[in-house]
Amino acid sequence: MTSLLPHHDGSPLYVSNHSPSLGDVVAVRLRVPSGYGSLAAVRTRSNPDHEPEWTDATPIGSVDGWDWWEAPVTVRNPRHGYRFLLLHEDGRVEWLNQSGLHTIETLDAEDFALVANPAPPAWLYDAVMYQVFPDRFARSAQADERPTPEWAIPASWDDQVDPVMPARSRQFYGGDLDGVIDKLDHLVSLGVNLLYLTPVFPAASNHRYDASSFDHVDPLLGGDEAYARLIAAAHARGIRVIGDLTSNHSGDRHEWFQAALGHPGAPEEEFYYFTDDANTRYESWLGYESLPKFDWSSQELRNRFIEGEDSIVAMWLKPPFGADGWRIDVANMTGRLGAVDLNQEVRTLLLKTMLEINPDTILLGESTNDAASDLQGDGWHGAMTYPSFTRPVWGWLSEPAGTPYLDANGDEVTEPWFFTQPVGGIPRYTAAQFVDAVVQFTAGIPWRVRLGNMQPLDTHDTARFATNAAPGTIPVAVGLSMTLPGVPVVFAGDEFGLTGADGESSRTPIPWGAQSEPEVAARIALYRDLVGLRRDYPVLATGGLRWLHVDDETVVFVRESSDESVLVLATKGDADAEIPAGALAGAEAAQAVVGDATLAVSADGSVLVTADGPAFAAWTLPGVTAPEGAVPDAAAR
Amino acid sequence: MTSLLPHHDGSPLYVSNHSPSLGDVVAVRLRVPSGYGSLAAVRTRSNPDHEPEWTDATPIGSVDGWDWWEAPVTVRNPRHGYRFLLLHEDGRVEWLNQSGLHTIETLDAEDFALVANPAPPAWLYDAVMYQVFPDRFARSAQADERPTPEWAIPASWDDQVDPVMPARSRQFYGGDLDGVIDKLDHLVSLGVNLLYLTPVFPAASNHRYDASSFDHVDPLLGGDEAYARLIAAAHARGIRVIGDLTSNHSGDRHEWFQAALGHPGAPEEEFYYFTDDANTRYESWLGYESLPKFDWSSQELRNRFIEGEDSIVAMWLKPPFGADGWRIDVANMTGRLGAVDLNQEVRTLLLKTMLEINPDTILLGESTNDAASDLQGDGWHGAMTYPSFTRPVWGWLSEPAGTPYLDANGDEVTEPWFFTQPVGGIPRYTAAQFVDAVVQFTAGIPWRVRLGNMQPLDTHDTARFATNAAPGTIPVAVGLSMTLPGVPVVFAGDEFGLTGADGESSRTPIPWGAQSEPEVAARIALYRDLVGLRRDYPVLATGGLRWLHVDDETVVFVRESSDESVLVLATKGDADAEIPAGALAGAEAAQAVVGDATLAVSADGSVLVTADGPAFAAWTLPGVTAPEGAVPDAAAR
Repeated sequence: MTSLLPHHDGSPLYVSNHSPSLGDVVAVRLRVPSGYGSLAAVRTRSNPDHEPEWTDATPIGSVDGWDWWEAPVTVRNPRHGYRFLLLHEDGRVEWLNQSGLHTIETLDAEDFALVANPAPPAWLYDAVMYQVFPDRFARSAQADERPTPEWAIPASWDDQVDPVMPARSRQFYGGDLDGVIDKLDHLVSLGVNLLYLTPVFPAASNHRYDASSFDHVDPLLGGDEAYARLIAAAHARGIRVIGDLTSNHSGDRHEWFQAALGHPGAPEEEFYYFTDDANTRYESWLGYESLPKFDWSSQELRNRFIEGEDSIVAMWLKPPFGADGWRIDVANMTGRLGAVDLNQEVRTLLLKTMLEINPDTILLGESTNDAASDLQGDGWHGAMTYPSFTRPVWGWLSEPAGTPYLDANGDEVTEPWFFTQPVGGIPRYTAAQFVDAVVQFTAGIPWRVRLGNMQPLDTHDTARFATNAAPGTIPVAVGLSMTLPGVPVVFAGDEFGLTGADGESSRTPIPWGAQSEPEVAARIALYRDLVGLRRDYPVLATGGLRWLHVDDETVVFVRESSDESVLVLATKGDADAEIPAGALAGAEAAQAVVGDATLAVSADGSVLVTADGPAFAAWTLPGVTAPEGAVPDAAAR
Repeated sequence: MTSLLPHHDGSPLYVSNHSPSLGDVVAVRLRVPSGYGSLAAVRTRSNPDHEPEWTDATPIGSVDGWDWWEAPVTVRNPRHGYRFLLLHEDGRVEWLNQSGLHTIETLDAEDFALVANPAPPAWLYDAVMYQVFPDRFARSAQADERPTPEWAIPASWDDQVDPVMPARSRQFYGGDLDGVIDKLDHLVSLGVNLLYLTPVFPAASNHRYDASSFDHVDPLLGGDEAYARLIAAAHARGIRVIGDLTSNHSGDRHEWFQAALGHPGAPEEEFYYFTDDANTRYESWLGYESLPKFDWSSQELRNRFIEGEDSIVAMWLKPPFGADGWRIDVANMTGRLGAVDLNQEVRTLLLKTMLEINPDTILLGESTNDAASDLQGDGWHGAMTYPSFTRPVWGWLSEPAGTPYLDANGDEVTEPWFFTQPVGGIPRYTAAQFVDAVVQFTAGIPWRVRLGNMQPLDTHDTARFATNAAPGTIPVAVGLSMTLPGVPVVFAGDEFGLTGADGESSRTPIPWGAQSEPEVAARIALYRDLVGLRRDYPVLATGGLRWLHVDDETVVFVRESSDESVLVLATKGDADAEIPAGALAGAEAAQAVVGDATLAVSADGSVLVTADGPAFAAWTLPGVTAPEGAVPDAAAR
């Protein structure tokens, strides 16, 4: 792979306006290595209303060995795709889109894309998310005074997580929201600034995805008052808070479901898919009867849940709570059942309500596999999704150890857990395959939405990455989560070095007492440093991305803006990466900021990056100087 | 490229039921070369309601050096995607989807896909289409009696086509439907069995895409009676007939538009996008005021045009006409304007009406670029589309000569016309790039829909392929159109060796008197032979497709069913293709049926195919023997 290639992405260096309205003219820019060959013309090809439209690019100047071209693109559809066409003097033709450079005509789905719906608040891109599973995070003094609910199997904070049914969903540690308040300074010290709480509604399980109401916070967590207190306390520390809502289903104890179950004619019966006349049988999430599936063809359900200022979606964003947004559970299946697909309607209505109530909020959808079809900018600002970052990182940086664990039935499993995919454990990716996977699963997503995608190493639904990490790769994995385009996520406990062989076992109570242990302290410091890297350099939030070197062991890329650049090395084995002369301007001014690696600029201008792996390292460099733009009608950049 | 690879496609060898209903279990089968390596397991991964579902495949036996696996797939969505997963004993994992074999997880969009909407009539797959542009095909004796319309510039049959405005759309040769009847025996002798007529409605142009009514056939063509006569005469000869309908726009002389233009409050005003209060300004196709765009949010427009038995769509399928379906003009833009996208609603309603009126009819949509997003089986049975066959063939087999021609403004153009893409003329593809393009632009389309895609070398909207064909490549291009999966199309006149430098110039009157000229006779014979190949071997309609050899000059593939196989060689230069032992069972029984090439089976079982290029050749071989299936619930194959 050479890194001396024409480049464009959706970042501000190349796009004059990432939040255009329909009809706006946006300037899009292409940079081409000066030695790349003579170009007769550069054009863009858009596809408004599914019919091609072309514009000519103009050369606007050369800086630091790159020739820049600029073209106007008029935004005609809410998702407006475009690609570049390079016409060489010698007759060769190349196409550039989000999957790279091609010598044959390319797919519409992989076009670069502008989005003409309202942009998410800018703070989404500056966020480093910290995910908390309330029952397992921290227990306040008040928790001791609360009775254990009838469904629960009480556990002491030091007890091991029991992954076997019935404990699997009922083991109850009693973490609560005041416990989270008590530990907010830990979040501050880590540097994270966005708290994502898995559900806080009353339920009959420790995970609370089976809500019995959306009207109140579970009293076991401290109730509505504690929720308001937590959000206020977080806000006072500069930390935003988002909740977790199940739009695919409720719990079977939910007041709406109970009103309809066995009660034909109840107003709420249309909220669910009852399959018999007596309202006793119904569709549910993957067949789990405790999770009856919502039927979004019901206008009354829409009214109560997602539409308008009195809806559930709205109330928690308003005072006295003032949450900063929602992560939507099972967003991928929401509104979908057989021949029915109301997903787009639901996600656009959700966003509409949030824009009405408070446009400074964010909306993330859980879509744990290929999420591209739902991520075109009409609803979700981003996704909790795994194939575009999390699984590729696991594939590359794990060393499948096969630590046996028990499944829900108590059967021993020796194959490492891998996202419930029966693929023989964790796949073994090279660094190059890691990059191929990242590119493939982001090529179909507009840049702006890609920036909102969550980039966890693990979550409450997965094994913890550390469980199967190859020796020395934790800094590499955490470093990548902080430096690739997307929202970094720390699942609470990862910074304590916790392991967990599957989604259940990873819901370990946080061992607060272990903070002073040297290994734990070192891991926390690692997280603090890498979160700090992300927070200190805004280019890591919204800067462009160019891959500079990829081989089987090593990845080198640069994030770039006009203000600054950050060069990143991630390697599993030893790194010996040569970046050709011209590919990286300003390398002689590189300043190491993280990691133990060497950067040397040769006499010919090429850059050699070496390290003993596994290693993660980052350097700052000057920003990229681009010529002044030429498109007169384009909105100011 | 090796051809000893695991294989699956949507053909009957591999899929038990290509017309399932929701809930049906379909058996899908994978064949793996016996020497491919030990497999620990083979699985399928579907994605119902966007959540993965997995099934295990069972080995069902080995035949002719291939191991066969079979898995059940329960069809849960109208477009039900699935892929195969191959788990090797050594831990390697491979994924197989419509774009091929992959070592990383793959995209949902490229899954194999079953379609649970009603299948098109089987005759679509047996069709060889013949496209007629009525003004230029044949002129009956009655035509002399008709007055020239006021918009027309009369031309004699031997006059050259004048591509410059105003002649471009007004030059009027007076071909008519009785002229077509007079020449039906030519169609019979060619072997084609599906006549596609571009519009026959009254209009103010020679192309008639600016209809002034959909209620009657243009009297200049002979009127309704002539249309009924033509269809009856065609049916009597075993030839079906489809019409051409503009769902994106009407002409500005259309009775609906005239009722609304300048008449605020007229019932028809909601049929169009008027942009001022006086109903004088409006949206139109690419800004052409003569083609006002339909607003499909109008229920009354739907009622009159596409819904129910009294609609326009219905009436021409019923007696006394009995047309066999529709080709829909500008299907890609229909219902789409800026933030509005009603395309899916329109195409599904169109199909619904046709299924109600006569389910033995076909519905093809014009979508001249990447059509995958609209071709998921909910509306169009197939598309008139160019990137998946026509443009790749041009790219490979053209020799851009740059014959200058005049554009609509009378300006000379020296760059060969290439689908109005400003890409510097015709791209230069190798055979390998041809295959890459075919694979790329079909990977997102369910097999069943792909079979319904039109496979023209050119149409009334394009230059004629022969204009820029490299010497000797016409048989190669025509042969490919007849043998790759899809509906072959002969644009009337191609068999006469006509040329035409752009879409206008290619609308040449058919030189009937030239049939006896040796070159023309030879060209007609070539078409007759290659249409005959397609018609004689049903495997070319619905059989599987395996690429056996691809290099820069040469493509070798085989179409396969349980009854028969056809091996195809297409080469631009000299061919020297070795197919490894095991890849093609039964090669020793190969019988040459078309073309001049040599097939030799070596002692080791490999097959050598050679030819002096350019060449097209085909052989018949025995059908593929597959083991008995094992999935008990699958519908009978």
